[in-house]
Amino acid sequence: MGPADMSKSKAIDFTVTMRKFDHNTLGKDHIMRTRAAVAVQAGKPLEVMDVNLDGPRDGEVLVEMKATGICHTDEFTLSGADPEGLFPAILGHEGAGVVVDVGPGVTSLKKGDHVIPLYTPECRECEYCLNPKTNLCQSIRSTQGQGLMPDGTSRFSTLDGDPILHYMGCSTFANHSVMPEIALAKVRDDAPFDKICYIGCGVTTGIGAVINTAKVEIGSRAIVFGLGGIGLNVIQGLRLAGADQIVGVDLNPSKVEMATRFGMTDFVNPSEIDGDLVAYLVALTKGGADYTFDATGNVGVMRTALEAAHKGWGESIIIGVAPAGAEISTRPFQLVTGRSWRGTAFGGARGRTDVPKIVDWYMDGKIEIDPMITHTMGLEDINKGFDLMHAGESIRSVVVY
Amino acid sequence: MGPADMSKSKAIDFTVTMRKFDHNTLGKDHIMRTRAAVAVQAGKPLEVMDVNLDGPRDGEVLVEMKATGICHTDEFTLSGADPEGLFPAILGHEGAGVVVDVGPGVTSLKKGDHVIPLYTPECRECEYCLNPKTNLCQSIRSTQGQGLMPDGTSRFSTLDGDPILHYMGCSTFANHSVMPEIALAKVRDDAPFDKICYIGCGVTTGIGAVINTAKVEIGSRAIVFGLGGIGLNVIQGLRLAGADQIVGVDLNPSKVEMATRFGMTDFVNPSEIDGDLVAYLVALTKGGADYTFDATGNVGVMRTALEAAHKGWGESIIIGVAPAGAEISTRPFQLVTGRSWRGTAFGGARGRTDVPKIVDWYMDGKIEIDPMITHTMGLEDINKGFDLMHAGESIRSVVVY
Ligand SMILES: [Zn+2]
Ligand SMILES: [Zn+2]
Ligand SMILES: [Zn+2]
Ligand SMILES: [Zn+2]
Repeated sequence: MGPADMSKSKAIDFTVTMRKFDHNTLGKDHIMRTRAAVAVQAGKPLEVMDVNLDGPRDGEVLVEMKATGICHTDEFTLSGADPEGLFPAILGHEGAGVVVDVGPGVTSLKKGDHVIPLYTPECRECEYCLNPKTNLCQSIRSTQGQGLMPDGTSRFSTLDGDPILHYMGCSTFANHSVMPEIALAKVRDDAPFDKICYIGCGVTTGIGAVINTAKVEIGSRAIVFGLGGIGLNVIQGLRLAGADQIVGVDLNPSKVEMATRFGMTDFVNPSEIDGDLVAYLVALTKGGADYTFDATGNVGVMRTALEAAHKGWGESIIIGVAPAGAEISTRPFQLVTGRSWRGTAFGGARGRTDVPKIVDWYMDGKIEIDPMITHTMGLEDINKGFDLMHAGESIRSVVVY
Repeated sequence: MGPADMSKSKAIDFTVTMRKFDHNTLGKDHIMRTRAAVAVQAGKPLEVMDVNLDGPRDGEVLVEMKATGICHTDEFTLSGADPEGLFPAILGHEGAGVVVDVGPGVTSLKKGDHVIPLYTPECRECEYCLNPKTNLCQSIRSTQGQGLMPDGTSRFSTLDGDPILHYMGCSTFANHSVMPEIALAKVRDDAPFDKICYIGCGVTTGIGAVINTAKVEIGSRAIVFGLGGIGLNVIQGLRLAGADQIVGVDLNPSKVEMATRFGMTDFVNPSEIDGDLVAYLVALTKGGADYTFDATGNVGVMRTALEAAHKGWGESIIIGVAPAGAEISTRPFQLVTGRSWRGTAFGGARGRTDVPKIVDWYMDGKIEIDPMITHTMGLEDINKGFDLMHAGESIRSVVVY
């Protein structure tokens, strides 16, 4: 569940950029053919097909994707619920792969490097990158939100030459993709692609919410609302941070076993609580949790999460992306008595700096990923991954190229 | 505008505590007579009368009040709008005075000490006092909320022996009052009572919101909504903290002169803005303010304040107390993109520790108070102070005993 709205902006006039490629200008040797799952239209299954991919331009990198997770944000856009969704596009933003070629001016990556694409880039030069309080690099935001590379064009096209848009600057549902250098984290060579691809979104979002955004201290009490993939990663982030009590809240008791494995110490099923859930959680955490995390995207749950935070110092972190137009609300008294309400995007992580460290944590056994990758499939079967998500049968499906 | 709801809790059964005083048990020598403005009933003017005051018991201190401000919170309770208001009571919570007597066990204060009463005490022993993230000492909260001293009784009574309740643990609208030792800040002897009384609420609330709660850094941009007494103190707190841009927002242009004197660099009258106020403020602050402060108590303004905070790192602090039942709301996207929503009570100050420092700042000329004390009067005329507040003619009225 990546914050899709983070990486996109309002649709603009595409008449200039959506023209057919002029292959003569670009030079035919820059064009390659690759296999991709194309989101042709909202609400329709992806169509797996060959597409053309233009080579990397200034500051860009050609990556051979080795694996990609299928995230709720891809589903959000594909479904048509995303008001900023654009089509046709190649979705996918949770990948891992190998550098095949670099464009002019690329200095930090070379052919053969293992990389994880970053839907939140890290240019290290913009006002945001230079402010230690945020990770929301804005250097390529407007073109990324339009499904384009920073120069305002797409590298993807149909075999007929019709442009296909990028997605969140990544488009990992293609066997090869082009990305800006600043949107790629270089990672160690010995890490398995089919696991570390998950660090490109879900793992970093959950663990980073704990470590970068909340900065949870050893001995804290915490409550995690929603025990899907993000919630599980919040839980293991809390365990890593040394939290004493990690309460998981979910309506589905089948989540208990996995959440316990990742560090949950108490499970609460709201449907089994008589009376007020906030009061129950406050009592369970001896006065309220030091930190609460919403990983549901439900604005009613977000309110519960805030109000279950401890008077005086409790912080509530919103991770889940709410439906368009939904609003959170509470009495200001909740804040005046010392609670704070915050949010996190990509776990507050600066991708080029932090993602390689999280890969190390995985390789060192500090965090687990393998049990969360419940299904793998080839690209041809990618729509099965979406079906498994809809059925609630997967934590994470991964496409292996 | 002190957070009244901070210091009070739901009404309880008073049948035990509201009995007539047994003067024989207490010893007649402990009873003194003093002059007080009594809130006899909601919605009625205060009645100035002689009352009985029992002497200080264990851990308590008898204070001769020298001056007291009249705050919006007193008005909130007197009007009947405060759902937790109790009557009859002696209101007032913004005082300054001299210690006349101390009860058994009092160690930190002695006769002759100058003191400022604290509606948020500082016991230095409770879970809250021991947590550096909060100032909301809870050690005497439940009795204080019931209008009683920590032993569950009142020291005030009518000349007929009918109990009169305390208010916010202070009751500064009496020439003499009894308070717990932990609810008194010892301050220097050379500071004028009729000015430093304002530090007991408004000054500390406004300056503390900047310094303790927001921890504003040098060079910050800030927006202050509401240019009443609290707003002016936020502004001078921002100046003290070295803010580069201090935008004041108010519908009343007559506030400009005073706000400018206290450090405001830009004034915005929302009624003169065409189009969206948030967009205007974001442009004025080059992308949004690093910190915004609501000193209006209006939940719609609180939303504007949040949304005018800078993407990525802006913090919005709620100071104003909203009407009962009012709720704040926004799209969670505002938080997920890096804004945080917080509140402050008594400016996040630990009174016994911080109030003496603020008195020093005043005496050293680092902050100004004198221009905000627009009216002074004797206790007999205290209702005129409320009239001036209603008419919007005063910033602060101070009763001098
Ligand atoms: Zn995602
Ligand atoms: Zn940047
Ligand atoms: Zn006040
Ligand atoms: Zn305390």
